[in-house]
Amino acid sequence: MSVDRDRLVSLRREFHRFPEPAWREFRTTARIVEELERIGVDDLYVGSDILAGERMSLPEEADLQRWLDDARAAGVDDDLLDRLAGGYTGALAVLEMGEGPTVGLRVDIDGLPRAESEDADHTPTAEGFRAETDAMHACGHDAHVTFGLGVIEAIKASDFSGTLKVVFQPAEEVVGGGKPVAESGLLDDCDYLLAAHVGLDHPTGEVVAGINGFLAVHHFEATFTGEPAHAGANPGDGRNANQALAAAVTNLYAIPRHQDGRTTVNAGVIRGGSATNIIPEEAYVEGEVRGETTELMEYMRDRAERVLEAAADMHACDVDVDTVGGAPSAVSDDAIVDVVESVAGGVEGVDSVLRTDALGGSEDATYLMQRVQDNGGKACYVGIGTDHPGGHHTATFDVDEDSLPIGVSVLSESILRLAAEH
Amino acid sequence: MSVDRDRLVSLRREFHRFPEPAWREFRTTARIVEELERIGVDDLYVGSDILAGERMSLPEEADLQRWLDDARAAGVDDDLLDRLAGGYTGALAVLEMGEGPTVGLRVDIDGLPRAESEDADHTPTAEGFRAETDAMHACGHDAHVTFGLGVIEAIKASDFSGTLKVVFQPAEEVVGGGKPVAESGLLDDCDYLLAAHVGLDHPTGEVVAGINGFLAVHHFEATFTGEPAHAGANPGDGRNANQALAAAVTNLYAIPRHQDGRTTVNAGVIRGGSATNIIPEEAYVEGEVRGETTELMEYMRDRAERVLEAAADMHACDVDVDTVGGAPSAVSDDAIVDVVESVAGGVEGVDSVLRTDALGGSEDATYLMQRVQDNGGKACYVGIGTDHPGGHHTATFDVDEDSLPIGVSVLSESILRLAAEH
Amino acid sequence: MSVDRDRLVSLRREFHRFPEPAWREFRTTARIVEELERIGVDDLYVGSDILAGERMSLPEEADLQRWLDDARAAGVDDDLLDRLAGGYTGALAVLEMGEGPTVGLRVDIDGLPRAESEDADHTPTAEGFRAETDAMHACGHDAHVTFGLGVIEAIKASDFSGTLKVVFQPAEEVVGGGKPVAESGLLDDCDYLLAAHVGLDHPTGEVVAGINGFLAVHHFEATFTGEPAHAGANPGDGRNANQALAAAVTNLYAIPRHQDGRTTVNAGVIRGGSATNIIPEEAYVEGEVRGETTELMEYMRDRAERVLEAAADMHACDVDVDTVGGAPSAVSDDAIVDVVESVAGGVEGVDSVLRTDALGGSEDATYLMQRVQDNGGKACYVGIGTDHPGGHHTATFDVDEDSLPIGVSVLSESILRLAAEH
Amino acid sequence: MSVDRDRLVSLRREFHRFPEPAWREFRTTARIVEELERIGVDDLYVGSDILAGERMSLPEEADLQRWLDDARAAGVDDDLLDRLAGGYTGALAVLEMGEGPTVGLRVDIDGLPRAESEDADHTPTAEGFRAETDAMHACGHDAHVTFGLGVIEAIKASDFSGTLKVVFQPAEEVVGGGKPVAESGLLDDCDYLLAAHVGLDHPTGEVVAGINGFLAVHHFEATFTGEPAHAGANPGDGRNANQALAAAVTNLYAIPRHQDGRTTVNAGVIRGGSATNIIPEEAYVEGEVRGETTELMEYMRDRAERVLEAAADMHACDVDVDTVGGAPSAVSDDAIVDVVESVAGGVEGVDSVLRTDALGGSEDATYLMQRVQDNGGKACYVGIGTDHPGGHHTATFDVDEDSLPIGVSVLSESILRLAAEH
Repeated sequence: MSVDRDRLVSLRREFHRFPEPAWREFRTTARIVEELERIGVDDLYVGSDILAGERMSLPEEADLQRWLDDARAAGVDDDLLDRLAGGYTGALAVLEMGEGPTVGLRVDIDGLPRAESEDADHTPTAEGFRAETDAMHACGHDAHVTFGLGVIEAIKASDFSGTLKVVFQPAEEVVGGGKPVAESGLLDDCDYLLAAHVGLDHPTGEVVAGINGFLAVHHFEATFTGEPAHAGANPGDGRNANQALAAAVTNLYAIPRHQDGRTTVNAGVIRGGSATNIIPEEAYVEGEVRGETTELMEYMRDRAERVLEAAADMHACDVDVDTVGGAPSAVSDDAIVDVVESVAGGVEGVDSVLRTDALGGSEDATYLMQRVQDNGGKACYVGIGTDHPGGHHTATFDVDEDSLPIGVSVLSESILRLAAEH
Repeated sequence: MSVDRDRLVSLRREFHRFPEPAWREFRTTARIVEELERIGVDDLYVGSDILAGERMSLPEEADLQRWLDDARAAGVDDDLLDRLAGGYTGALAVLEMGEGPTVGLRVDIDGLPRAESEDADHTPTAEGFRAETDAMHACGHDAHVTFGLGVIEAIKASDFSGTLKVVFQPAEEVVGGGKPVAESGLLDDCDYLLAAHVGLDHPTGEVVAGINGFLAVHHFEATFTGEPAHAGANPGDGRNANQALAAAVTNLYAIPRHQDGRTTVNAGVIRGGSATNIIPEEAYVEGEVRGETTELMEYMRDRAERVLEAAADMHACDVDVDTVGGAPSAVSDDAIVDVVESVAGGVEGVDSVLRTDALGGSEDATYLMQRVQDNGGKACYVGIGTDHPGGHHTATFDVDEDSLPIGVSVLSESILRLAAEH
Repeated sequence: MSVDRDRLVSLRREFHRFPEPAWREFRTTARIVEELERIGVDDLYVGSDILAGERMSLPEEADLQRWLDDARAAGVDDDLLDRLAGGYTGALAVLEMGEGPTVGLRVDIDGLPRAESEDADHTPTAEGFRAETDAMHACGHDAHVTFGLGVIEAIKASDFSGTLKVVFQPAEEVVGGGKPVAESGLLDDCDYLLAAHVGLDHPTGEVVAGINGFLAVHHFEATFTGEPAHAGANPGDGRNANQALAAAVTNLYAIPRHQDGRTTVNAGVIRGGSATNIIPEEAYVEGEVRGETTELMEYMRDRAERVLEAAADMHACDVDVDTVGGAPSAVSDDAIVDVVESVAGGVEGVDSVLRTDALGGSEDATYLMQRVQDNGGKACYVGIGTDHPGGHHTATFDVDEDSLPIGVSVLSESILRLAAEH
Repeated sequence: MSVDRDRLVSLRREFHRFPEPAWREFRTTARIVEELERIGVDDLYVGSDILAGERMSLPEEADLQRWLDDARAAGVDDDLLDRLAGGYTGALAVLEMGEGPTVGLRVDIDGLPRAESEDADHTPTAEGFRAETDAMHACGHDAHVTFGLGVIEAIKASDFSGTLKVVFQPAEEVVGGGKPVAESGLLDDCDYLLAAHVGLDHPTGEVVAGINGFLAVHHFEATFTGEPAHAGANPGDGRNANQALAAAVTNLYAIPRHQDGRTTVNAGVIRGGSATNIIPEEAYVEGEVRGETTELMEYMRDRAERVLEAAADMHACDVDVDTVGGAPSAVSDDAIVDVVESVAGGVEGVDSVLRTDALGGSEDATYLMQRVQDNGGKACYVGIGTDHPGGHHTATFDVDEDSLPIGVSVLSESILRLAAEH
């Protein structure tokens, strides 16, 4: 297997230096396209080619424009930027290498809208590849991009027989990209689909063959509208949106939890009112519910909508409830798990292979996994351990670069085996 | 009495065109100073001369700077702006006209941070003097400034014997200016203090000799701090600031109301949390309590602090509670009310004189009234009716300009009578 | 004026010894009837004769029966008890004394369902007339009955010319008797109606000519119905009535208070659920709202019903809301207040006469006052001060018996004057 | 194996006819003792002999007395009743049959305080053995008593070599009996302990060899104490216990749920306040928390106590929080599960054997299981399927009597095998 650790490290550090948040991966996509063209692939889809239907959680136009301008200022090709404009980011590369199954690999590419640690102990800071944008690769998607590129190079250099499709998916962090990529239909012909994630509290050298325990998730936002009034002179004339919101938030967390499995709820972002002395006219909550199964998520969603509507009614307000994203649950198929479990043990640097573990969170890779499974294929979500000093999404998250060649090898060898045994 | 309706209308429209919010009355103060210099007064205090002690509810530095820059761009004199920089706005003019009592008049000068109606039916729009800043004189302080200037001109032209002090007070709308002006001590020698307000749902031609029913008010802000955690993977590790806030908001409104008089409470502005999928780490509420007496306000304040602290404790969070402003209650003295009641009946255009009415709101003029009363003087808050199409603080509020000469005459005649009968 | 202090004291102590709660004043009514027959009146109405329409807040049948049995055991005449059975208590006596106006006097006769102090300092205990039932005259209705009987004797012995109607009204404490007595129509021909109350924090020797500030009141009960489920095994299958109740109680107290006057709300009695390990299927709240005017009470009532219904909906429960009582607001007429104010000053033992004061509570005398006023008559609610060691409704409440002859005299003299000046 | 279906049915119906709730199993214990004496056992412990330490969830004295009186009226022997007086119910029988291990069997004997269906379709009603008390065997403990007696008879007639201890445990439904029976030490020498339950949604003919998934449980009661005041006249003087309770109930259900496993919370019984027009002085809640592990239960318990205390503080009330019961989690040992799984397949009438299933509820058998395990023994909780028309704890619950001989056989055969293989 042709895996060059130095090249992987160099690629990963480059992506680490210019993280871009969801739907704003302009420079990232351009750099991926540049590498793919250098490597040479048989087909290359970009931006709107890989995104069908509605894109959830899209940022404001001005915000998109700012990141687009920054990419342009960084020297990204104008023609390519035109294709990505409006947040149509991401790419999909195809290698056609003769008879055999179609194998997909999905990696995600977005960073998080948070600042990276400036601490001297933080390796990217110490070694000069700390983020130069005001985002951060705090969840390892820089490693995922590297996996994607490394696997293409490795497979191209191998005796693989079949078709390989690697999708560089945008907007995972807002649970936004998985659905439109699935709806593009580009992966419908996959016999197998792999997705991968580094870390997840597994150390370098540990591999999880097939992760399960994806929580189905539903993101909502609700806007309560009441009637303003002077809080000192005419409180009885108002209809208080903050009171409605507070009743909703308290009672959202008090939704009866279902016996059939794990559920969660969070009223993550709230704001309301305009002035201390005005009965608040408008209030807003953005939240989420999750469930161990899609049904449990739907139970929580229905209960949450009931709470939101009754809270508005209780305080004589109106409420608009909108869906802003979501993802179903999914299960890794044993057929692929068996292969990964068997292959991983033989990869250099791997000293522990777990058959399965629970994610305990949500991932929009599940849209892609379900799509492939609905079309008769198999899917599997692989965990590649990495020592990470800070937790995922924190300022000191970092990837142990020894896990880069491990990830590329585990995925490439699995793809070879799947094709060989097909 | 020398009262020129056309000049008053012209002044008022000019101030109406460039409203500035609390502590940002740079251009307004400059224009007042310019007029006072034109009229000719014996003493003129500006900015920090009239403000002692802490100024509450001061805006952010950048916000102050923006309004200062706008004033400079509008041609305000640099030397004067230097004296006002940092939000030291407002002015106090003195006329010394021989033996006799010292009579004070307080008018407030700030606008509100809201947009003015663009409706063709709205007189300022129709007649071309709609606000040109992004604030609005939606509470008639443009008329109050005009009262102050008109009274100085009228008294200067009269046979008044004594000293007149007119304070153009900043930052009434945030209950911020009254206290530092009181603490400057410049009004401590007043035998009489008058304050005035237009409108208050009284029609043009109606005068309220001495308004009472000021609600004492206390503004607070509270910041809840918890612990973030991933809402899907580790909700049990978080300490949820939004839950604490919601419990607080609901229970603030549920504070038992006291039988001794009117009380109000409002959680006017709330915000909390950083992301849909993060257990909220920080939440903020800015609110107020009021009471018909200072004691009732204090009862509500103590109860509110109890609720805020217990709500934090309930959800394992911490809370910091800060005071951001406030004003006591106050009572108009009969000695002045008698004079205003008697004088007003004889003023042209006045067809109804009420001895008293309840404000039912708060006003930081009460700091000045209490200060004068504590020093042995008398104080009175006079209502000058005006037909106003929209309510106070709304986009269609406007002043019937017929009330401008009425206000100037009622106040000037009362000042003359107070001096004459002293 | 014929007023025998010793007789009044003796009567009052007798009534004090056998207090009976609302709708259960069997022995009390019988004793009143006995006295009226002894005195000799022209007409005597009892029980269902004076009660028309629905009687609110009637106790359980078994409870009524227990008190009826006790009255029978105490020797009350069987025929009379038959007329009172089912809670048809109270009486109305008429004196017809020639030409002149019809003057009504209303006194209330029920005790409270609470234990009386056994403290040696408590006069009824010390002097041997402590309650022998398990109720207590803790609000002075024993004095009111005595006023009623005393006034009849005094008027009968006077040169009064007109008709006197004295109603001994049951069930004031549950706001139950006033409405059906009003609807009987027996007071419709009154030109004047007086009602009276002892104490109310006024000392012996003080008289309030016309009390105002009656809070209109509305009593409700709400029953929430959900679905039980095992709290450990199947919490998601339940619909939790206790959660609905808790949301309702919290938000009832948080109803925005109206600027037009005083309002109150109380969720006085709650209960819910059947077992620790069962999701509660049923919960109950009994509460009240009050307002300084009938309109304010209705504002609170409408808001309360909205809260109750939304709280049920929020937790997927049903709710039944029923009215269990209430009383409107009312105002004492100046025409009578003038007379009482003038007369009281001349009564022996009176050293202070207030024209008016606010009750700050509710009273179903307002039904009778409104009925008389709607029919063109005048009404007035008189306060007779009495030193009372404990507060109203507490275990150590007691009446200073010096206030008994004062009350009889003030009321009788006022009746004489009203007739004389008619 | 000596199992007489008719005798088992007859015994079960007899116990079904006189169900007694927790700690009031006077007649039940007496009848058990009578049967044990008839069968002939080597040792017999009754009442206080088998109960050490504090007994939780004991009913009121008067309630105990009523059930004791009823038992006496039903002809139960006075001497025995004297030993049971005060709620010291239950019994433990010992068979000593030579060398070999000590095997324990625990069955519970209490009914539930609820009415049984009078529906003609309900078999106990149709066949004349419906409950004659105002309790009901709605959870199959009548079958459990029958299992206990049947197993003793079967083992006595067998070639079992060892010691058998069968404990007829009181007060399972209130999670009250398990702890004091464990603390008696009478089962400390058990090498093996079996417990059994019928039904649990498994049909007749199905056996679960070793049930797991016991939720640790903690029962609490909290009493809030405030200050009463007249709700109309002096609401500001009160401290409202119902408000504290409502804040507590709402926020108890909103405790953040832990990611480590299943948790539940229930505020099952609430009551508060004394009268509609009194600010509530006292309020009470009885509730429970559960957790999939003892640690999770403790997390919920600590959070619940925090909520209760903060809710009191928020409304200026005090709160007393008491523990009224609880049980730990427990796990069935594979060593016994293997035996039961193997034996059950050969029992007549058994057509399905599950190795394990989750209870998803709580059981104080876990105290006994933990005690035996802590002393080096093994424990196992066996499920004996039975078709039950209504759910557990409902009015139409019933046991398919075909499951009686199955239960006795599965348990007896397992005991024989455990001894044989020891």
